[in-house]
Amino acid sequence: MAINRIGKRTVKLKNNPTIISATSIVGPKESQGPLKDYFDILLDDDLFGEKSWELAESKMIQTVMKETAKKAGKNLDEIDFMIGGDLINQILPSSFAARELSIPFLGIYGACSNMAEGMCISSMLIDGGFADYILSGTSSHYCTAERQFRYPLELGNQKPMTAQWTVTGSGCVLVSPNKKGPKIKYLTIGKVIDKGIDDPNNMGAAMAPAAVDTIYSYFDDTKDDPNSFDIIATGDLGTLGMQITIDFLKEKGLDISKVYTDCGVEIFNLKEQDVHCGGSGCGCSGSVFAGYIYKKLINKEFNKVMLVSTGALLSPTSTLQKQTIPSIAHAVIIEND
Amino acid sequence: MAINRIGKRTVKLKNNPTIISATSIVGPKESQGPLKDYFDILLDDDLFGEKSWELAESKMIQTVMKETAKKAGKNLDEIDFMIGGDLINQILPSSFAARELSIPFLGIYGACSNMAEGMCISSMLIDGGFADYILSGTSSHYCTAERQFRYPLELGNQKPMTAQWTVTGSGCVLVSPNKKGPKIKYLTIGKVIDKGIDDPNNMGAAMAPAAVDTIYSYFDDTKDDPNSFDIIATGDLGTLGMQITIDFLKEKGLDISKVYTDCGVEIFNLKEQDVHCGGSGCGCSGSVFAGYIYKKLINKEFNKVMLVSTGALLSPTSTLQKQTIPSIAHAVIIEND
Repeated sequence: MAINRIGKRTVKLKNNPTIISATSIVGPKESQGPLKDYFDILLDDDLFGEKSWELAESKMIQTVMKETAKKAGKNLDEIDFMIGGDLINQILPSSFAARELSIPFLGIYGACSNMAEGMCISSMLIDGGFADYILSGTSSHYCTAERQFRYPLELGNQKPMTAQWTVTGSGCVLVSPNKKGPKIKYLTIGKVIDKGIDDPNNMGAAMAPAAVDTIYSYFDDTKDDPNSFDIIATGDLGTLGMQITIDFLKEKGLDISKVYTDCGVEIFNLKEQDVHCGGSGCGCSGSVFAGYIYKKLINKEFNKVMLVSTGALLSPTSTLQKQTIPSIAHAVIIEND
Repeated sequence: MAINRIGKRTVKLKNNPTIISATSIVGPKESQGPLKDYFDILLDDDLFGEKSWELAESKMIQTVMKETAKKAGKNLDEIDFMIGGDLINQILPSSFAARELSIPFLGIYGACSNMAEGMCISSMLIDGGFADYILSGTSSHYCTAERQFRYPLELGNQKPMTAQWTVTGSGCVLVSPNKKGPKIKYLTIGKVIDKGIDDPNNMGAAMAPAAVDTIYSYFDDTKDDPNSFDIIATGDLGTLGMQITIDFLKEKGLDISKVYTDCGVEIFNLKEQDVHCGGSGCGCSGSVFAGYIYKKLINKEFNKVMLVSTGALLSPTSTLQKQTIPSIAHAVIIEND
């Protein structure tokens, strides 16, 4: 068996890939939510001074990448790789950001699982000695996602109560070998799971089985104790998907309920902000990890964390072709020394 | 500096990640081209028995993944990771293939650079001891790409002579540590380069500067001799992009012309098959590598090869927003023992 593995599906990192800095940016609505004091940059204009929402989203990811390098005292030409992806067709925001930043670029697509997917790949590449500094991040924007996946905003469509609200936000981490800061210790790469949900306004239910599969695999592989975590955070399951995850894991004999939350439930005040089941989008777990969770790790309020970003791998074309929604979730386990 | 690097941007792999098997599949038009005897599976129906072209493309990538595992005597549950991506929004073909194959999945998006991007990531993950077996592949389909990026096929649009023909095809490799077979020795990850081309019917000119940057970086980092290669193959620059690449590299003092070709020029008979500047698409370098080049490596007709898959990171949205075309190219250097 490969030397850096434990159990069937989990990777054990041995050379202490460290998250040495992180930055979050969010839009106007997220800036009024309960986590507002944790985010680094709050926008009061969701166009961010650009001509289109897509260019605004690209500017968000550029901004967090630049800021994260700067916080670590690094110039962009000292960064070996940039890993990025988003929800938009051909990952326009990330690709255009990579053009401006001029860092060797690995584009990824895992829908809203991008934050964890990027952290998985970057921590393995750092652990294996292939790079000294990797920037990894993701973004989403309410307006780019709505017009691409659903309806033009101008239509003023109503949403069913199972729907979620795509976060306008971006988050990014800088990973480097064996430095001061929180270390990425384990990761579990997700399988694509599809239990037959075909309603793109019910992503939480579509994605929950993927989160269940990945979380269960990690604990099965490592025999770790869920209650040894300060927090286990899924990406954007919302209230409905969270409850399904708790229930399905309990059926498999695993109780994570004492330490479990969801970034999409944390980022908005669900009762007052009219977001139905909660936040969603790559930028949801991106900004909540790089803002809230990372700061709690640095302050030692959290010492052991699991981020499980969850992605729904549907496309408007697959929906039109009456396909169900395949989903994925990747887990990253981060600990303080 | 990270232990597995040489020069500014090149990664040196030390544990002999080996391509132990590979499979290619192509559509009806490609089955009449000059490389027809090298491809493993020739389709006479571009729907491959499915109801839509997108599902046909997904079935192509499923087919090469299954066949590649089978050739190496491996069951799918022995494969640690599957890496895949394609041109289609939300990488529908790859994501749906990953659902059927049930292998832990890392989705990537580098447009037509996917074949090399996947080989870069898989070879590093194998080299670092994070996996024993990784399947990595990509696909494209003339009909899915045309209706997504250009016009409905039913419109019967004419194309300018700078245009290329998207290959219907898929290719896949299985990478494993230190076995019998061709080894991935070096890789150079591309930067996103944009010299201002804004015509989506002139991809060769848009992508050539990215290929030039990556090829030049590899030789600058390693001081290797271009003429020590049996073949240097770009992904899908076509005749125009090839000439630009040769000219720009000569200006920088590097002459690769004796060993240089382009997968998009090789796959079709340009004079007789009415494909203008040649083939394009992820499946172009995917099928030409997994078919033609890999077989020549196995037969020792080639002993040292560079694959430089090239990707144009545009989207229909970026074109409508009057943006120019950012491009990328990743290089993988493969040698027989």
